Amino acid sequence: MNLLILDGCDETQGASAAERLGPGWTVTPGRHSDPPDVLASRLAVADAAVTQYWTADLPPAPRLRLLQLPGAGFDAVDLDAVPAGCAVCNVYEHEIGISEYIVAALLEREIRIARMDSGLRRGEWRDGFALGAPLHGELHGKTVGFVGYGRIARATARRLAPFGVRMAARTRSPDRSGPGAELVGDLAGIDRLDDMLPAVDYLVITCPLTETTRGLIDARRLARLGAAAVVVNVSRGPIVDEEALYAACRDGTIGGAVIDTWYRYPDPSGGRGQRCLPSRFPFETLANVVMTPHASGWSARLLERRWTVIVENLLRLERGEPLCNLLRPPAGANPAAGAP
Amino acid sequence: MNLLILDGCDETQGASAAERLGPGWTVTPGRHSDPPDVLASRLAVADAAVTQYWTADLPPAPRLRLLQLPGAGFDAVDLDAVPAGCAVCNVYEHEIGISEYIVAALLEREIRIARMDSGLRRGEWRDGFALGAPLHGELHGKTVGFVGYGRIARATARRLAPFGVRMAARTRSPDRSGPGAELVGDLAGIDRLDDMLPAVDYLVITCPLTETTRGLIDARRLARLGAAAVVVNVSRGPIVDEEALYAACRDGTIGGAVIDTWYRYPDPSGGRGQRCLPSRFPFETLANVVMTPHASGWSARLLERRWTVIVENLLRLERGEPLCNLLRPPAGANPAAGAP
Repeated sequence: MNLLILDGCDETQGASAAERLGPGWTVTPGRHSDPPDVLASRLAVADAAVTQYWTADLPPAPRLRLLQLPGAGFDAVDLDAVPAGCAVCNVYEHEIGISEYIVAALLEREIRIARMDSGLRRGEWRDGFALGAPLHGELHGKTVGFVGYGRIARATARRLAPFGVRMAARTRSPDRSGPGAELVGDLAGIDRLDDMLPAVDYLVITCPLTETTRGLIDARRLARLGAAAVVVNVSRGPIVDEEALYAACRDGTIGGAVIDTWYRYPDPSGGRGQRCLPSRFPFETLANVVMTPHASGWSARLLERRWTVIVENLLRLERGEPLCNLLRPPAGANPAAGAP
Repeated sequence: MNLLILDGCDETQGASAAERLGPGWTVTPGRHSDPPDVLASRLAVADAAVTQYWTADLPPAPRLRLLQLPGAGFDAVDLDAVPAGCAVCNVYEHEIGISEYIVAALLEREIRIARMDSGLRRGEWRDGFALGAPLHGELHGKTVGFVGYGRIARATARRLAPFGVRMAARTRSPDRSGPGAELVGDLAGIDRLDDMLPAVDYLVITCPLTETTRGLIDARRLARLGAAAVVVNVSRGPIVDEEALYAACRDGTIGGAVIDTWYRYPDPSGGRGQRCLPSRFPFETLANVVMTPHASGWSARLLERRWTVIVENLLRLERGEPLCNLLRPPAGANPAAGAP
């Protein structure tokens, strides 16, 4: 079996995968930017490929039976361009890192440890009880609303539950008997998104980017949020309208935003030293915004966990067993045959 | 009934308390720094006093039946100097704020959102996946060890449980069937403190300051911690040896510290503008230390919750009912008569 690993995959993980796959597999690393004939010859023999990107201009991959994404998002895959007989699978495992990031961001928004730290380093006690300073916030009693209620939102809800927060969620397929539904007091379909907005202190975006979710949180919906509400986006930037979010933060019509997923990204082949502001609007000038570089899920054991699933899926392909995390079955296959 | 409220109590809360206590009570505010004759005349008629401080040089308080502390710590009360017929009670209610602070500090130590934010504001993507940056930490899988397992530690353990951390605790009276014991894999007496230290990633100090806990975490015990371990002190500074903690952080023999409770405090009567570095050692020069001004529990609804308990206790005193949070019963009383 030939496995082609294209771009963005850590070499150590690739080597370790080759070792775990065993002698039945030949593992070839490559890049989308390789010379066309090199890329073409590799795709011509590949039985499986690991890559986050698949476009219509790729050379033919006639033997391809598994396109395995190394991450969760499939917005960079043109499903119509993937060979019909090829299954498409993704991996998650980022819900640990992302849910930790969300809880951290909410708590820091309330407590502001960083602000206290910089003050006390100058000998200032403005935030402590000793000089009768103002009290800081509490997460306890706040309301968190999730847009999307998949793995990330559920992992976050499980972690938030003991903090005494109220939780609501809007999702494509609300299921009161589904996993994690018991954590959420108010679970409803995405058609009832608008009625969740006025009550939330934190609006947490965790749905995938699709043509229906692009621009879902627009100026009209941002205007339904309270003046202290904070938008937290750990999913994909364009789910929230870029200009409307910037204006709402700048004008203080909402409390602010915690933004991990953006509108503009650096060139992957441009080297680590390059600078790239993540929006055409100057979010970096706003004090009520926390900005992180699409790193919420980029945590210590993520790749180890993901490659464990990827290797398992490749071995299942080899043995003809049902695949994990099937996004799209191969043409003619029974979609119900996917493993959970 | 005469209630004397001395120092450090918010006037709004005092006024609201007077209203809730009703016409049977006369509420008088005062200060320890009042002229001696003023203080003496007020203490001479007080049936109850709310204050965090009680020293042997105070004028007599012959009618005093309840010394109600407005906080949890009783290290500023000389119990031998409190009139024998007077009960001493404290209040908690800070476990919500302090446990939120601890979880926030642990998560931020792993993820370092503040560092990412300052980078991305300059267009740097050094922490994200886009340019293959290093992965940040995860709280998942870490080990947290509590010194003391009272209300704060239990509230923290409840919040940490869904993060997949291992927990251990050492306490004066370990009780495997006590509240919250099920959250802690390794619960033992304080005599087994030393054997907990090598395994912890976070050592969280939550015990009260007493003559047995003063200096409990000394140079020898700090040396038993791993090189990445972080000491988190939300209790009282002097439980951790000041010089030894500074040296361990400075020399990197431990990973660092999150310090909310200190060795030096500003003068309560000196005004908010004063500056006071919180130790005779320059912790403010160390990058592996997070410094906050005894503010972890100083959170939004703390005073409201505490004054609800204080008013309830004063009404119980008036009605001759058992008191809440009894630290020391009046002489001759049955200690078991205290309410839970």
